[in-house]
Amino acid sequence: MPRMTAMSVPAEVHSRGREAHEARVLHALRERGALSRGEIAEVVGVARTTLSEITRDLLRRGAIVVVDTDAANRAGSGRPAERLALDPKSGQFIGVDFGHRRVHVVIADASHEIVASGRRPYPDGEGWPARVQEAFALIDQLAADCGVHFNALQGIGIGVTGPYPRSSAPHAPEGAFGPGFAAARDGVDEAFAQRFGASVIVDNNTRFAALAETSTGSHTVEDLLYIRLSDGVGGALVVGRRLVTGAIGLAGELGHVTVVPDGNPCRCGKAGCLETVASVPAVLAACRARGAEITSLADLKAAAGRFDPVVEQVLHDAATAVGRVLGTVAMTCNPAEVVIAGELARLSPLIVDQVTATVAAELFPWAAAKPVIRCGQLSDDDGALGALAALFHSSPLLGGYPDPPATRLPA
Amino acid sequence: MPRMTAMSVPAEVHSRGREAHEARVLHALRERGALSRGEIAEVVGVARTTLSEITRDLLRRGAIVVVDTDAANRAGSGRPAERLALDPKSGQFIGVDFGHRRVHVVIADASHEIVASGRRPYPDGEGWPARVQEAFALIDQLAADCGVHFNALQGIGIGVTGPYPRSSAPHAPEGAFGPGFAAARDGVDEAFAQRFGASVIVDNNTRFAALAETSTGSHTVEDLLYIRLSDGVGGALVVGRRLVTGAIGLAGELGHVTVVPDGNPCRCGKAGCLETVASVPAVLAACRARGAEITSLADLKAAAGRFDPVVEQVLHDAATAVGRVLGTVAMTCNPAEVVIAGELARLSPLIVDQVTATVAAELFPWAAAKPVIRCGQLSDDDGALGALAALFHSSPLLGGYPDPPATRLPA
Repeated sequence: MPRMTAMSVPAEVHSRGREAHEARVLHALRERGALSRGEIAEVVGVARTTLSEITRDLLRRGAIVVVDTDAANRAGSGRPAERLALDPKSGQFIGVDFGHRRVHVVIADASHEIVASGRRPYPDGEGWPARVQEAFALIDQLAADCGVHFNALQGIGIGVTGPYPRSSAPHAPEGAFGPGFAAARDGVDEAFAQRFGASVIVDNNTRFAALAETSTGSHTVEDLLYIRLSDGVGGALVVGRRLVTGAIGLAGELGHVTVVPDGNPCRCGKAGCLETVASVPAVLAACRARGAEITSLADLKAAAGRFDPVVEQVLHDAATAVGRVLGTVAMTCNPAEVVIAGELARLSPLIVDQVTATVAAELFPWAAAKPVIRCGQLSDDDGALGALAALFHSSPLLGGYPDPPATRLPA
Repeated sequence: MPRMTAMSVPAEVHSRGREAHEARVLHALRERGALSRGEIAEVVGVARTTLSEITRDLLRRGAIVVVDTDAANRAGSGRPAERLALDPKSGQFIGVDFGHRRVHVVIADASHEIVASGRRPYPDGEGWPARVQEAFALIDQLAADCGVHFNALQGIGIGVTGPYPRSSAPHAPEGAFGPGFAAARDGVDEAFAQRFGASVIVDNNTRFAALAETSTGSHTVEDLLYIRLSDGVGGALVVGRRLVTGAIGLAGELGHVTVVPDGNPCRCGKAGCLETVASVPAVLAACRARGAEITSLADLKAAAGRFDPVVEQVLHDAATAVGRVLGTVAMTCNPAEVVIAGELARLSPLIVDQVTATVAAELFPWAAAKPVIRCGQLSDDDGALGALAALFHSSPLLGGYPDPPATRLPA
């Protein structure tokens, strides 16, 4: 008889239990304000010894502070008990998004309120050391302008361009995304960890953007499929509010699905990838190849606005290719929402309309099987906000970010 | 400034915390044998009051039993404490797989050892009430033959054919998979729950089979993409050892991805689905359409064995279509393994070889980006074993099966 072997309790059950406790302690403090350890233990339903460990840890990390004692309200006798509370000023988070031509930084406090935001341009193709220096200068400037002190920095989330495989896994070969690209970028996490003495999460900025789109305003969604049509085409898959990273961290590369067998060469080394059809440069090139005088995104927008038939056809073809890829993935993952982001998505309603029609035709012919398909609600801010969201998920304030690709705390 | 809104602690944090506690209590008992409540509280690090609730619940469900007291080893004074333990004979699990032409049942004990297994045929197209009666009779017979008593039945996992949307979500319209199919099948969980007085999980049997393939022998894998080429074509996606069910439970329907625009009509209402190209009936029909005298799977196997060029071409085309779909999904999910199951996969090495070549061409041209592609290791047993695996995951013995599509305990 075969024996089922799925039964050993995984090692992370213990740390997951601990994380759940921490989340409940912090939740109780957020909901009820200052509490004594005894009150917390009662509310959360955890042993005093376990709770002491947790509060010691949270105090050390600056997530909570001692605010006073319960002497004033104390009915019985004995030593007054310290009361603990979240202190919005006592913790900070930094979200960084390195785009192709600018770095964007957001700073949030311990209550997850964004207190500063800014960006700095750099030349297209700028090297990573220079990009990192721009980011450092921007962070210093924002902190000075807003009076933020990184006295209890909880973590830094960094979005980067290009696929970001897990550090423990073999990387893309040098040169796959430009000479020296991967190796230089791989030092970014260490540079931030050294400079700020905080733990760092790095991931693809499109994946972070998808995470940000799961929670905009009062709207939240569990299962989301995300694509970004920009200089390149990237994507991400969120299942049960968690980013799918994949076996070696390469999940979400929708831009490199082959859509035209033997099509135009792609920078990834393949040919006919979705990116060669549905990125901004690909669309501009296709318009020019058909005789339209389109040299910029502004030209493209204007031509789409006046219903230029060549531009409409090119956008229709690009959106159809996007819809076919999304349809296949949606059939596999059954997302509640599909989000189309990037400059091209915002260019003309034609894109979202055509993607919607194509995805609908690809899925089961029942209304309930169709996801909501919408334009991305966030724009240039999404990568940095998503990096923050990932930090929040991985921070003691809310467990949930699965197995971060790289988290380091300098010794 | 935008405010991040991902921060409210979700309601299930509490029940997840409880599940984690239960898993740790059971893990401790499995690792250390019988323990008193005080010892468990110390090992697990949980408050005595919380632990009492947990052990009361586990005792009620028969997952643990009182074995003796610590009177013999007790150094101090006071009332002897009861010692609790897992008892392999004190819990049973039933896995059921309803195929198109037979029901398969496996019975496991509390240690997850399979103690009985059997199957019964029924006519193709048999109604659900008759299928259920066959299953009941088979379970009774197996229990009698093996001396199993369902005195502490932990749960019943039931695999069924066809997409199985969540009970809370709108279903496929009547007739989409045969007249009366969905409505009759939807009573299956209640029928089992009433008959056995146990909680029931129902899901698509292909999804359960995928779960079984994540853990065969000593081999386990976290991220797996699964396809089954049989009478129909089904699939499933496992991410981080969990079945992806999707927003309304429709995830994994790889067989209904369009691969031939305006192709042959499919039973789902679309045309040109993968199932119309790569299922057993589709392959047989394609061989006959090209003049080959092939009327059965045995004919097909024999013809492939003698390198019949028509059959080889048909299998090549089918496998290429499968590889394209798997390639797109693999680009999105980055699985560690791709498993091809079903009669067609076992027919000839040509299938797995051609799928492997096609998937390789669809993915990034780096060796590390390629998943392992293999034939399914389990065969006819996989659905029932997977149903058991899902039960084990959802049972107090190991949390993990996400949001079961249907779990009911009769009042």
